Amino acid sequence: MADFLADTQVEPEPDRPGRFRAALSPEWAVWGPNGGYLAAIALRAGMAASRLSRPASFHCHFLASGAFAPVEVQVASLGGGKRAESLRIDVVQGDRMLLAATLWMVGDDLRGFEHDFGRRPDVPAPAALRSYRDLVGDEYAEWYPIWRSMDGRPVRFREPPGEPRCHTWLRFTDTPVADRAADALRQLFWLDFPGWNATIAAHPWPFRFIAPNLDLTAHFHAFAPDADWTLTEGHVPLARDGLVSCVSRCWTEDGRLLATGTTKHLCRPNPNYAADVERARAMGMVVDEE
Amino acid sequence: MADFLADTQVEPEPDRPGRFRAALSPEWAVWGPNGGYLAAIALRAGMAASRLSRPASFHCHFLASGAFAPVEVQVASLGGGKRAESLRIDVVQGDRMLLAATLWMVGDDLRGFEHDFGRRPDVPAPAALRSYRDLVGDEYAEWYPIWRSMDGRPVRFREPPGEPRCHTWLRFTDTPVADRAADALRQLFWLDFPGWNATIAAHPWPFRFIAPNLDLTAHFHAFAPDADWTLTEGHVPLARDGLVSCVSRCWTEDGRLLATGTTKHLCRPNPNYAADVERARAMGMVVDEE
Repeated sequence: MADFLADTQVEPEPDRPGRFRAALSPEWAVWGPNGGYLAAIALRAGMAASRLSRPASFHCHFLASGAFAPVEVQVASLGGGKRAESLRIDVVQGDRMLLAATLWMVGDDLRGFEHDFGRRPDVPAPAALRSYRDLVGDEYAEWYPIWRSMDGRPVRFREPPGEPRCHTWLRFTDTPVADRAADALRQLFWLDFPGWNATIAAHPWPFRFIAPNLDLTAHFHAFAPDADWTLTEGHVPLARDGLVSCVSRCWTEDGRLLATGTTKHLCRPNPNYAADVERARAMGMVVDEE
Repeated sequence: MADFLADTQVEPEPDRPGRFRAALSPEWAVWGPNGGYLAAIALRAGMAASRLSRPASFHCHFLASGAFAPVEVQVASLGGGKRAESLRIDVVQGDRMLLAATLWMVGDDLRGFEHDFGRRPDVPAPAALRSYRDLVGDEYAEWYPIWRSMDGRPVRFREPPGEPRCHTWLRFTDTPVADRAADALRQLFWLDFPGWNATIAAHPWPFRFIAPNLDLTAHFHAFAPDADWTLTEGHVPLARDGLVSCVSRCWTEDGRLLATGTTKHLCRPNPNYAADVERARAMGMVVDEE
């Protein structure tokens, strides 16, 4: 049970402007360090290095998964204007680049068009839903380590294949979120999740493929550090030719649209497919192998 | 009347791997070189430099608008794997960086999840709609130069403020599109447009703000070089605190979802607002100045 903010800390290196040190914690493991977790470390260094205080948008490529070990974060300002700053952020481990990111930071005193059509989808509140932990029982202990420090309540769970869309409430179990910068890290982390769940909503288990994220884009709209649960939505209208593309969004429980993101995924054969098929057959399922 | 592909050509520099020369043409002017046009030059250099042939996703920051003059494009491979390559692309003019981009290229032999829920919105076909040229009459001659080389047919035009969503058919007037790479450049260019039209769909003219693009993300799904018209959709659910965020999509006339994109915009006071108000009043409109 880990604190996401403690585990995404970045330490500026004395006498090396724009350089930060961080360490990848195994508490945020999936098959390796979770991508959204690594992205949050990059965002945190970018926010720390910027002369402006409000994150507007973030984008990154996931280049390599890396080890649970120290990383160096290198931040450079690319320009912009008085009211916006563009930053480039690289996360490096030894001589391997793990992540390449860019970030727009903006000022707090901006005025512009104002409208809000970002209504929250009409789904049950988290209090009316069951957590993954309760839904899957003993199996939960086998889920990736990351699931010890976060909690999820899906609106649909293991239903027959349908539309490639998912809605899941997510929260940290042990991470107090105190301010806007911390909330931005949390939002970025949540935006990285829905791509997989939205994809598999249209396909029967066992899945022939896995679909690791190639990239992650986040547009930050508003901040709600006080909020506990976040509703994440993913929508993957099209999967073809080995690629999957998701648009994801985050809302507060009281209906505020917080962020919009995209993720692009590259499919690979599921290395556990044969074992999954066997397990499914043992459960009495009829599996149509291709 | 210009050819978009002729005007986005990139010339590799002999003996300097990853360096290309291009020139920004005034045929693609808005208040300066159009952002999507500049992005297409970056994408073209990235595709030319990659060891792989299929563009998967592209992202860029618009840093400065630049002059109609030569630019240098610098491409570096950041890594990836056998089936995907990450590239970083900078567009530089003199000592100014105009654009910073990243690109994922992938192989052609990928397999993965297959589904298609990317249905085209049910809007009238281009043949049933009128072009901007016909809708605005003499005023069209005053539109930015870019409108001499492209044609647009909006589904709604200057209607009362409503939902922040737009649908517009777009085509080049003088650009034959022969192959997948050319179509990727066209898709990227179209994805940059809808942010503004979707935003103003929710606001009465005259507009107090302009909203230049800070960034552009594109996910390429499919290619249709043979298609003439492209349906572009923009959706801007939320505008607040000086920022606007759009999700845009492109479809062919026969209903194929081609690409999904996002654009983030920074609002600025409209420098022509006073003149626009005067013009509106001369037309008999009641304008509520703030």
